Amino acid sequence: MKIALAQNNYHIGNFEANCNKIIETIKEARDKGADLVVFAELAVCGYPPQDFLEFDDFIHRCENAVRQIAEVCTDIACIIGSPVRNTGPKGKPLFNAAVFCFQGETQVFRKALLPNYDVFDEYRYFEPARTFEILKFKNKKIALTICEDIWDVGNSRLYTVNPMEELIVHEPDLMINIAASPFNYGQPKRRLEVLRENVSLYKIPLIYVNHVGAQTEILFDGGSAAFSADGHVAVSLPFFEESLKIVDSEELAALKSETDNLVIPEKMELIQDALVMGVRDYFAKMGFKKAILGLSGGIDSALTMVLAARALGSENVFGLLMPSQFSSSHSVEDALALAKNLGSPCSIIEIKDLFDTFDDSLKSHFEGRTFDVTEENIQARIRGVLLMAFCNKFGYILLNTSNKSEAAVGYGTLYGDMNGGLSVLGDVYKTEVFELARYINRAQEIIPENTIIKPPSAELRPNQKDSDSLPEYDLLDQILYQYIELRKGPGELVAMGFDEKLVNRVLKLVNTNEYKRHQTPPILRVSPKAFGMGRRMPIVAKYLS
Amino acid sequence: MKIALAQNNYHIGNFEANCNKIIETIKEARDKGADLVVFAELAVCGYPPQDFLEFDDFIHRCENAVRQIAEVCTDIACIIGSPVRNTGPKGKPLFNAAVFCFQGETQVFRKALLPNYDVFDEYRYFEPARTFEILKFKNKKIALTICEDIWDVGNSRLYTVNPMEELIVHEPDLMINIAASPFNYGQPKRRLEVLRENVSLYKIPLIYVNHVGAQTEILFDGGSAAFSADGHVAVSLPFFEESLKIVDSEELAALKSETDNLVIPEKMELIQDALVMGVRDYFAKMGFKKAILGLSGGIDSALTMVLAARALGSENVFGLLMPSQFSSSHSVEDALALAKNLGSPCSIIEIKDLFDTFDDSLKSHFEGRTFDVTEENIQARIRGVLLMAFCNKFGYILLNTSNKSEAAVGYGTLYGDMNGGLSVLGDVYKTEVFELARYINRAQEIIPENTIIKPPSAELRPNQKDSDSLPEYDLLDQILYQYIELRKGPGELVAMGFDEKLVNRVLKLVNTNEYKRHQTPPILRVSPKAFGMGRRMPIVAKYLS
Repeated sequence: MKIALAQNNYHIGNFEANCNKIIETIKEARDKGADLVVFAELAVCGYPPQDFLEFDDFIHRCENAVRQIAEVCTDIACIIGSPVRNTGPKGKPLFNAAVFCFQGETQVFRKALLPNYDVFDEYRYFEPARTFEILKFKNKKIALTICEDIWDVGNSRLYTVNPMEELIVHEPDLMINIAASPFNYGQPKRRLEVLRENVSLYKIPLIYVNHVGAQTEILFDGGSAAFSADGHVAVSLPFFEESLKIVDSEELAALKSETDNLVIPEKMELIQDALVMGVRDYFAKMGFKKAILGLSGGIDSALTMVLAARALGSENVFGLLMPSQFSSSHSVEDALALAKNLGSPCSIIEIKDLFDTFDDSLKSHFEGRTFDVTEENIQARIRGVLLMAFCNKFGYILLNTSNKSEAAVGYGTLYGDMNGGLSVLGDVYKTEVFELARYINRAQEIIPENTIIKPPSAELRPNQKDSDSLPEYDLLDQILYQYIELRKGPGELVAMGFDEKLVNRVLKLVNTNEYKRHQTPPILRVSPKAFGMGRRMPIVAKYLS
Repeated sequence: MKIALAQNNYHIGNFEANCNKIIETIKEARDKGADLVVFAELAVCGYPPQDFLEFDDFIHRCENAVRQIAEVCTDIACIIGSPVRNTGPKGKPLFNAAVFCFQGETQVFRKALLPNYDVFDEYRYFEPARTFEILKFKNKKIALTICEDIWDVGNSRLYTVNPMEELIVHEPDLMINIAASPFNYGQPKRRLEVLRENVSLYKIPLIYVNHVGAQTEILFDGGSAAFSADGHVAVSLPFFEESLKIVDSEELAALKSETDNLVIPEKMELIQDALVMGVRDYFAKMGFKKAILGLSGGIDSALTMVLAARALGSENVFGLLMPSQFSSSHSVEDALALAKNLGSPCSIIEIKDLFDTFDDSLKSHFEGRTFDVTEENIQARIRGVLLMAFCNKFGYILLNTSNKSEAAVGYGTLYGDMNGGLSVLGDVYKTEVFELARYINRAQEIIPENTIIKPPSAELRPNQKDSDSLPEYDLLDQILYQYIELRKGPGELVAMGFDEKLVNRVLKLVNTNEYKRHQTPPILRVSPKAFGMGRRMPIVAKYLS
């Protein structure tokens, strides 16, 4: 049996576009001789549809889409992900389903393991399946599962049932898993391990089809693949691209190989590609073309601009320089050099007059008070107003340039440099920002060397350095990683050798700045624990703070 | 048996404060002759603790708190809510538990029905209980459940098990339910119905203990009560206040009554009291005393100021008037009259100079372009910068004054009037804003009559009215309510008689402004479906948009 793996980029709620794409893919697969074409989890509506699933109208459109798709499946079958209604007397109103379509008939297979951690909320909408069926097609028995259904492997068992253990008793010839498995830089490797563990447990081939593309903060890297029965990757689809490939299930079952047809790129390449896709897809799906950002001469805005230029084209990324009396001359030079290297447009607006006018307006109210963080923030906020004025006047989308270290400790001005439609680097620690800048520059200098080597500074008061307010980033990022990604508490951090006072100070900064992160733009998620929908913290809490 | 109902206000993660309060309450209950004191769900850590539950350190502190509390329970018993670890080989790492403490011993009862909708995420953290036990104390059999455990009543069954049906076979003498049941204006009535339905099904008394107080956007109104076996409220605790009351379980079982000892206030009183508590508690828990807001002379800022003055004291609420060349004279007069009525401080800063300086700075870049929404937004953003400057300089917290109708359709300026630490009216539709203003003014004019009767206007261009851009609020709010609260789709709305073009326009406005709502302050939740953590929508989606 020839099976097509369809790794597509869907648009949440855009049934017309998704349906057209799916039907075109079915036709292409048929032209290429496929018997069955496999699409990703919830492909008809895009993933994650979130609370749209609570609208009867939305479910109705999903059902219509499946019907349209099924009508096309005459001399070819397809497996397509869609929500389906729970018609039983109890439980949540929907199932997360894989629908098998062939010759006008449909057969529904339901997901049993519903991830409800980090960015996942599936138990919010779906009832888990409690019974399991084999799909029979062309004299083959197929164990058809959905994403998480095959992820509860290894020692720690999150769930009390295991779908493949239920299905394997029917002696299937083949496993097919349709997925919506979001990217983080560790995910391609982890996914390979989990898929291979299933093959080594059940000793039959496995076909795995994932989403590709970005849904605001959630990035899908694709990485769809077909595994031979002996546990090797026989065919892999590219990362971060749409793709259609056909495999022969008999060949997969017979194949003996020594190596994987899969190369997982290294961390910086993965992060770069993910962020570029994230920016490109945000603009494409929102219907925008042009980005603007504040260019400070620093490394965060420089790196953001490079990534945006790769995503949107250099000519579509506009850099606005807004020096104040505290800006060093190299800041302007470095920013201009970057724009020149990229061939991107830029302009300069001095903010001194604006700052002075605010000063005048506030003078009588602030009498007797000295320059403090107020005046620093006013500068950042003037820049925010100017950038948003360009957005309003010309239709730019503002890119936020904050990094994860800053977002973590609240080193940024709300309604100032924390503005933006999308945060490009908000899940990239400052030390990773440096690493990624070096990676970008590996063949030629794109980001000016001086931008990389000078000490980080917000330049909001004379001779300011980040290190005046924060620990050195090398140390800070280690503590942040242990606390945010690994959920280590203060006792564990001190036991690891970090200074107790420093640990308490950093953890307090993270927790007391939750209110700031509540109002930041969506952050492209590239780590296993990003700020945003995958990390939910109360604001008024008093814990380690 | 004498049972104390302890309706307390807890602070998330503040174990010291929570523990002290719980231990003081135990002592007070003992002094008053109670045999058992009942606290709310997850009382030791506050509700909702969200992802703090993923920190081993946090759970460890919960366990310590329970241990300290148990040590105090020598000649009195208590029931206290706390997370406890799942020590089994499978499932999520925690249970949501009620711990019975007496004479140094503890006995754990686990929650089976885990709400995972709207503002609830319990399945993210907890494994549901699958076995059920009766609590035995002082020769009584008690069916002890936790919140949602007794809410799956009526025709539509969300869950596949029912804890009370499991427990009733043991013939308990009494039901006790500990809860964290958030407020919305319909909740006191709904809660009474659900509790009464349990009593009428199982025909034994019921003791119900809820939280009171605000946890950022989530408000708890209390409403704890003791029901006689014949289904009447024998004792009720006040709404929106801490309280401790003692009931006798024998008396409850024997009581025959005709009426409820409970009066549920009407909608506007409930909303007013909830919002005042929400503002007060936000400031108290964050450690702040003083609020600032932009006073426009309009009804939203006027109502916000009244509520804030009631929460924090008039002297702690500062109104900043920032008229532009487009502000009408009555705007300033109305704003000053309000501040005078309240006895609150206020100041005026004209923004014309600032606007002109922005105009100068941008002139060469915007050459040939005319006045549009850019210049309107600049005015709103100048005001945002000024308000935040006061916050930074004097330690005020900015209150956001947007209402739910504006938040719904995106009628507001991001980084301008959408700024704030807390949104007071973001879950109150414009038509309800009027209703609440009338309620506030029912005995005397606090909000100037002119503020209530003049047509709403943003005053960002000459002679602007809200109705230039939006449908009349009477009509708009009806459509919004059907779409947001009741999840009606366009077909259903048209079938209800709304104009199809208008429906499509409003729904598109709601959906395309998700990006704005993503960056707004937390909104005090008073309706069954508020913007914020209870309504989760994708940003890049293209659905009805």
